[in-house]
Amino acid sequence: MPVVTPISATAEELSRVTYDADGLVTAVIQEHGSGDVLMIGYMNGDTLRQTLETGRITFWSRSRQGVWVKGETSGDRMYLREAFYDCDGDALLFKVEQEGRGACHTGDHSCFHRAFGASTDS
Amino acid sequence: MPVVTPISATAEELSRVTYDADGLVTAVIQEHGSGDVLMIGYMNGDTLRQTLETGRITFWSRSRQGVWVKGETSGDRMYLREAFYDCDGDALLFKVEQEGRGACHTGDHSCFHRAFGASTDS
Repeated sequence: MPVVTPISATAEELSRVTYDADGLVTAVIQEHGSGDVLMIGYMNGDTLRQTLETGRITFWSRSRQGVWVKGETSGDRMYLREAFYDCDGDALLFKVEQEGRGACHTGDHSCFHRAFGASTDS
Repeated sequence: MPVVTPISATAEELSRVTYDADGLVTAVIQEHGSGDVLMIGYMNGDTLRQTLETGRITFWSRSRQGVWVKGETSGDRMYLREAFYDCDGDALLFKVEQEGRGACHTGDHSCFHRAFGASTDS
């Protein structure tokens, strides 16, 4: 099992994050090492704090309207390595160690496995 | 000036993109080569097609409610190299060549230049 590395964010850092009308902020998940962008998800204030404190990527699921500890069911867990917030505080970037098959529910390594211009059908 | 590389997306590929209630989709911008995540922005159907056809990253600015050809004013242009859509079609990933100082209006290379846990103040 990968090492868990919680991050101690300061109150000032957390206060710089801004949330949309639904109380959510966009989170980009990038694989530590490879640099592959794996997926994007959404967090509220609670799941952001939970992510930083537990070292496990934890989203707010918009479809299920509930806390989503990534990989809790599938085993495809994401272990936090580094966490960033952007210049206007309305987006987050997490570098993670990906456990299991990959980030995508299809079993693909990244959710962004389909390229524009790759098809021959039109 | 970097080479411009338009991407010919098929109608079927474009039809797999889904837009939110405001007609927008989230776009993650990653630097080709370094793998650095530079920023996120938003596109509507028109600016997605414009991005692919012109090879220049073009957002819909939510604050200005208008077309935003990235770097048109600042010179910090982004040239398209690869474009992906995610498993459920509600997020895009663009790999780009970054011209100028960087992606961020602060002059930083990436908008994600601030890390949680980096401050000593609390």
